[in-house]
Amino acid sequence: MPNLQNQVAQAHAFRALHRGKILVLPNAWDVVSARLIEASGFSAIATTSAGIAFSLGYPDGEKISREEMLAAVARIAAAVKVPVTADVEAGYGDRPDDAAETAKRVIAAGAVGMNLEDATHDPQHPLADLSLQLEKIAAVQETARTLGVPIVLNARTDVYLREVGTPDRYPETLRRLAAFRDAGADCLFVPGLRDAETIRRLVAELKHPVNILAVPGSPSIPELEKLGVARVSLGSGTMRAALGVLAKITQELKSTGTYASLEGAPSHAELNRLMRLSPEDDPH
Amino acid sequence: MPNLQNQVAQAHAFRALHRGKILVLPNAWDVVSARLIEASGFSAIATTSAGIAFSLGYPDGEKISREEMLAAVARIAAAVKVPVTADVEAGYGDRPDDAAETAKRVIAAGAVGMNLEDATHDPQHPLADLSLQLEKIAAVQETARTLGVPIVLNARTDVYLREVGTPDRYPETLRRLAAFRDAGADCLFVPGLRDAETIRRLVAELKHPVNILAVPGSPSIPELEKLGVARVSLGSGTMRAALGVLAKITQELKSTGTYASLEGAPSHAELNRLMRLSPEDDPH
Repeated sequence: MPNLQNQVAQAHAFRALHRGKILVLPNAWDVVSARLIEASGFSAIATTSAGIAFSLGYPDGEKISREEMLAAVARIAAAVKVPVTADVEAGYGDRPDDAAETAKRVIAAGAVGMNLEDATHDPQHPLADLSLQLEKIAAVQETARTLGVPIVLNARTDVYLREVGTPDRYPETLRRLAAFRDAGADCLFVPGLRDAETIRRLVAELKHPVNILAVPGSPSIPELEKLGVARVSLGSGTMRAALGVLAKITQELKSTGTYASLEGAPSHAELNRLMRLSPEDDPH
Repeated sequence: MPNLQNQVAQAHAFRALHRGKILVLPNAWDVVSARLIEASGFSAIATTSAGIAFSLGYPDGEKISREEMLAAVARIAAAVKVPVTADVEAGYGDRPDDAAETAKRVIAAGAVGMNLEDATHDPQHPLADLSLQLEKIAAVQETARTLGVPIVLNARTDVYLREVGTPDRYPETLRRLAAFRDAGADCLFVPGLRDAETIRRLVAELKHPVNILAVPGSPSIPELEKLGVARVSLGSGTMRAALGVLAKITQELKSTGTYASLEGAPSHAELNRLMRLSPEDDPH
């Protein structure tokens, strides 16, 4: 069981990380990836829902059950000392009650933050109505209040990511994120937005912590910091890059039958040390 | 539940793969890695116990429970069409009954092969007595016979890997592997052996399928095939290489704050296709 007092302190500490130096979150998909990120000096762990879903045998997009997703988050949260924030997609269900149940499970999993996105999986209606999304956000916050454990809420709109609506997606993005902010979201997440000037304008207009998804071609971390971005995450990019190496390994085995793609990996002994269990550092 | 008739056919097919062209097994540690290996055209999937343990939060070496290890194997076996062979370490217990129970769970997980190693986790006594190991091998085979589902047994000695005994580890390796062969093991696994001439000699003396662990510096696949090797696997090398990329990503974020290490990864859409669930291809 997570220690609730510690969890409350962690939630406050994680919230504070959105107000100082830029917060950089290379996302984790399992325990060893989380441990490696923590050992590399990052101050929090964000999970990738796509990475966890792929690892466990599902496509992305809420095909995995809430239970399996949160069980993976709980393993990670139990294995690291830094705060963990969970990517829980659109909250595993359309209703505010679903979002409330998901928030409850996020807290039970030992995480202190969560993403909540407005994407649906209906191509005819790719984004949830704003009023419904605000009800879901309120339900998450009510759950945290009732349980006495804050959830640092990263409220996400997929207007850019899903390429919804007119070519100029800025007005709808701003409208949604401003509403999420006014509803009390701690951070506003806009994956799919890469243009530096648009990012600068959005941050200036929102006057609130903004999370940018970094991909190859995005402004660098120092550039994003100058634009006023509070938080940068990599989404499934970390896990996909890891799988990219496996693809290289298999191609090399099939072509020259050699093993150069295996080089530079941490040794078995290093990973064993990274995963060590000790009385004060036991993930289970 | 696995389809037992299909499983029997798969076991025979997997055993036959040890008698033709060299069998190459880049090891999988989760569902998506297994799917990617299968999609790359490999004819079977071998799991890495270290990779699965790390992913789930444990060091290597039977710190994970048998239940958790086999649950991960079952997920993989349900998600691919090719035969799956499970790395189940030393069988999760010292007694022949433990090996029998593990074999039963391997079959229930839908796998058709298993590794059984003679390493202990006692530095004073790093290898199990040969007589005990032969009893464990017999217990695995008896379990398969009783259940009517063959297990392709890859019997492993860690004389080289653990650097046990005198500098010349060949005689003890040969003694153990010959005994495993005579006890009915389908394949003989000798991780830690890299020298081409020693491999050639071992294969010639054993006259039985031999599994070599390939690492950077090992003879290439075509060379191993010429030496008479039946099966090559990569152990935790695949998963460690994948984590090596994550280490590169985190270093790049910390230094230049850029994302070049993310490049070349399979796209989100590609991985979603790889993980698609369809009525005839549903992992769950």
